[in-house]
Amino acid sequence: MQEVNLGLYFLSEVVGTAMLILLGCGVVANVALAKTKGNAGGTLMVNWGWGLAVFAGVIVSAYSGAQLNPAVSIGLLVAGKIGFVQFLVAVAAQLVGAIIGAVLAWASYKQHFDDEPDPAAKLGVFSTGPAIRSYGFNFLTEVIATFVLVFVIFGFSDYGVADIGVPGGIGGLAAVPVALLVVGIGASLGGPTGYAINPARDLGPRIAHAILPIKGKGSSDWGYAWVPVAGPLVGGLLAGVLAPVLLGLGK
Amino acid sequence: MQEVNLGLYFLSEVVGTAMLILLGCGVVANVALAKTKGNAGGTLMVNWGWGLAVFAGVIVSAYSGAQLNPAVSIGLLVAGKIGFVQFLVAVAAQLVGAIIGAVLAWASYKQHFDDEPDPAAKLGVFSTGPAIRSYGFNFLTEVIATFVLVFVIFGFSDYGVADIGVPGGIGGLAAVPVALLVVGIGASLGGPTGYAINPARDLGPRIAHAILPIKGKGSSDWGYAWVPVAGPLVGGLLAGVLAPVLLGLGK
Amino acid sequence: MQEVNLGLYFLSEVVGTAMLILLGCGVVANVALAKTKGNAGGTLMVNWGWGLAVFAGVIVSAYSGAQLNPAVSIGLLVAGKIGFVQFLVAVAAQLVGAIIGAVLAWASYKQHFDDEPDPAAKLGVFSTGPAIRSYGFNFLTEVIATFVLVFVIFGFSDYGVADIGVPGGIGGLAAVPVALLVVGIGASLGGPTGYAINPARDLGPRIAHAILPIKGKGSSDWGYAWVPVAGPLVGGLLAGVLAPVLLGLGK
Amino acid sequence: MQEVNLGLYFLSEVVGTAMLILLGCGVVANVALAKTKGNAGGTLMVNWGWGLAVFAGVIVSAYSGAQLNPAVSIGLLVAGKIGFVQFLVAVAAQLVGAIIGAVLAWASYKQHFDDEPDPAAKLGVFSTGPAIRSYGFNFLTEVIATFVLVFVIFGFSDYGVADIGVPGGIGGLAAVPVALLVVGIGASLGGPTGYAINPARDLGPRIAHAILPIKGKGSSDWGYAWVPVAGPLVGGLLAGVLAPVLLGLGK
Repeated sequence: MQEVNLGLYFLSEVVGTAMLILLGCGVVANVALAKTKGNAGGTLMVNWGWGLAVFAGVIVSAYSGAQLNPAVSIGLLVAGKIGFVQFLVAVAAQLVGAIIGAVLAWASYKQHFDDEPDPAAKLGVFSTGPAIRSYGFNFLTEVIATFVLVFVIFGFSDYGVADIGVPGGIGGLAAVPVALLVVGIGASLGGPTGYAINPARDLGPRIAHAILPIKGKGSSDWGYAWVPVAGPLVGGLLAGVLAPVLLGLGK
Repeated sequence: MQEVNLGLYFLSEVVGTAMLILLGCGVVANVALAKTKGNAGGTLMVNWGWGLAVFAGVIVSAYSGAQLNPAVSIGLLVAGKIGFVQFLVAVAAQLVGAIIGAVLAWASYKQHFDDEPDPAAKLGVFSTGPAIRSYGFNFLTEVIATFVLVFVIFGFSDYGVADIGVPGGIGGLAAVPVALLVVGIGASLGGPTGYAINPARDLGPRIAHAILPIKGKGSSDWGYAWVPVAGPLVGGLLAGVLAPVLLGLGK
Repeated sequence: MQEVNLGLYFLSEVVGTAMLILLGCGVVANVALAKTKGNAGGTLMVNWGWGLAVFAGVIVSAYSGAQLNPAVSIGLLVAGKIGFVQFLVAVAAQLVGAIIGAVLAWASYKQHFDDEPDPAAKLGVFSTGPAIRSYGFNFLTEVIATFVLVFVIFGFSDYGVADIGVPGGIGGLAAVPVALLVVGIGASLGGPTGYAINPARDLGPRIAHAILPIKGKGSSDWGYAWVPVAGPLVGGLLAGVLAPVLLGLGK
Repeated sequence: MQEVNLGLYFLSEVVGTAMLILLGCGVVANVALAKTKGNAGGTLMVNWGWGLAVFAGVIVSAYSGAQLNPAVSIGLLVAGKIGFVQFLVAVAAQLVGAIIGAVLAWASYKQHFDDEPDPAAKLGVFSTGPAIRSYGFNFLTEVIATFVLVFVIFGFSDYGVADIGVPGGIGGLAAVPVALLVVGIGASLGGPTGYAINPARDLGPRIAHAILPIKGKGSSDWGYAWVPVAGPLVGGLLAGVLAPVLLGLGK
């Protein structure tokens, strides 16, 4: 592990995650809120929006290797690619960045939040919720989808294309495969839970939803909040354990 | 041909094909099953989902050169790029991986399978079926579409961009063209049969459909099952024969 | 100019253009004909289909530098990148390849042609037609759209990314920008005429439409046929004249 | 700073911006005007159209480093990457290019403008307008969206992938990330104002709309015109100030 300045490391994860959440929550706002130009733009537009949100976030988070996701960070931790202090700093920064990004998304769509009558649509811009509520199955879906994310990200490292978690290890064209992966996971595994696949992506905006003075907002649905935190952490941990075994075979 | 460890070779094809089928069957589930977030997401979303499923599968199947498809393997065999034992090991692994992937897709969408009333929609998540049933024409469409797949993959090798079937020959950014090719084939030639273009992609999930305790499932349509096996094998074989003649001209 | 074997040169353009037209006409068939899986898949799906059709065609046409289009070839001719004999050989091959591709697309969708009641939908799979018929304006739109195609292709050469018309000058990842360009032109300038932007793409399939025993086919609309031939040739010629002036400035 | 020929510099920005606006206004015309083939093609199609319009514009504007946008140029100016004279020349050229591009888009869709009954749809092809009019919030949305654009573009430079504003610093495959970024911003932050994120993109076509003899045109909405000029300039300026602080950390 290279020596890192933890302050800059923290800042890098804040900036990248804020960018990710601003654009990610933004595309849901565009598709879901009243009177926007993208209203009813469809699921594929949401998938591309989130994939390219990750793309932009990765580009502006070079110093910390653009983890942007506690599930990625826990995978890197168990695989020995980052240390425990770095893990803690990254996760704290991701949560702070996610809250900032959600506030900016809300500011960008302020009038459309005001004009939207449905409280569930407003919460849906911030946080994920299940299509059919069942904590066990929702948890399972998040475990599988996040496993795919982190496992394939380890696959990128093996090719030297992108080395997430390594300073300067990811960026530019190398961010394109990561974006495409997120588009694919959203299209394929986003149907049951809206693919949090990132505890900070869900918890940060949920905190913002609870705090912000959103006109006519309803519940922040804290009863569901543990699923998109615990599921992705378990998925990322499994990927961190299994990737060294199943990828890079024969090395 | 490099010396390969056949156990690792087998494992690599299992992992890659399971990833491919999990994401590929997943996108169909998202678009076709009741109450999902991607319900009625459209054909283009299905095309991108399958293309990016191949992308993810390729990334995690480096050791065996990410064949993931008996039609690709047979093309490599007749072109002399892999040996007969490797071919057999790869195909067996692809079938096992496809079954595993289909089970995982079913688990991810378990509640939506339970809530979906139409047995045909459930089978459609697992296996392909013809828009207009006619074994001869359906077979022909699968031959042509798979020929395109394998022939263009040979074209990739000629540029040194991606060398499928060669350990480490494909991955990272080089997986992007393969994904785009699959998106294109789906959009262009998927209309009549739903583009199996891969015997394992169709047969593995069909076996899973027959075995799994899916609520309210109907027939596994075994009468059609030979078409998406035989058509792709013939298409891949033709590509393996013709590619050395028609590509890399003048070499 | 390198020495080329004109027979292989001809074959290379036949193979690439046949691939282009098989996939390009295929996506229109999928979206426009009765009972297909992609029926009513939307304009963006057609744009991606044609863009990726060009992608696949480029990959399998390395020897001749993947021109695939008389408008590209005329641009290369006036810019001095290919000679007159090469130009003639390429254009003849492109026309032959386009006819072959159209026949294969028809074979792939044979039953759907049989079930489609509208003769105009059948012709639309083969050739372009104007949204509002007006030969002058239709011609102008084709000139502008093809100018964009060939002019930007010259821009690719300047970066050394892709050198269309040069043996081995284009392929692999370098084919991706060409595909994206075609997606963009289709989305942006395809509205009035359906963007032939390639005389072979329109004339070859129109000849196939006239010859093939298509059930219930109507007119091949030969009155319009000159527009998607002459417009693209003028656009490509203008690009071949202006690109050396306006691109690569200061060299 | 390298020595540049300001005449060629001007020409390069004219050509690139004209290409950008021809294709960008073109995709809106295709989706919004009566009787086009892409009518009602959806928001995602518009997003891809504008992203690939930027792609094509970048490719043909190598000499000046493909700024194409006063908000990008002001960011480069405050970051010390270009000088004040270059800035002024670039912005003037961008405005001229944008007017030319808008005229070409109008010519390409001339008949569809004539057949379109709604004056607002015609203006919408040229310039942006707010979904919910409120100058303060519309301004804020443009500031945020343009900050994202220019800030991430600075991120590209840090990776050496693309160096916008540097002669020859951007092009070919390196233009792909820029295109994807614009697709993402449109999908995520285009909902409230239609994402001008470029003063020339909005003002140039608005001038063209005011001047051109468009049949049945209505107001050019000059009351709103300052928002998509001032908002992007502030956003680009902020990015130029903050990018050196927040990106390339620890250098």
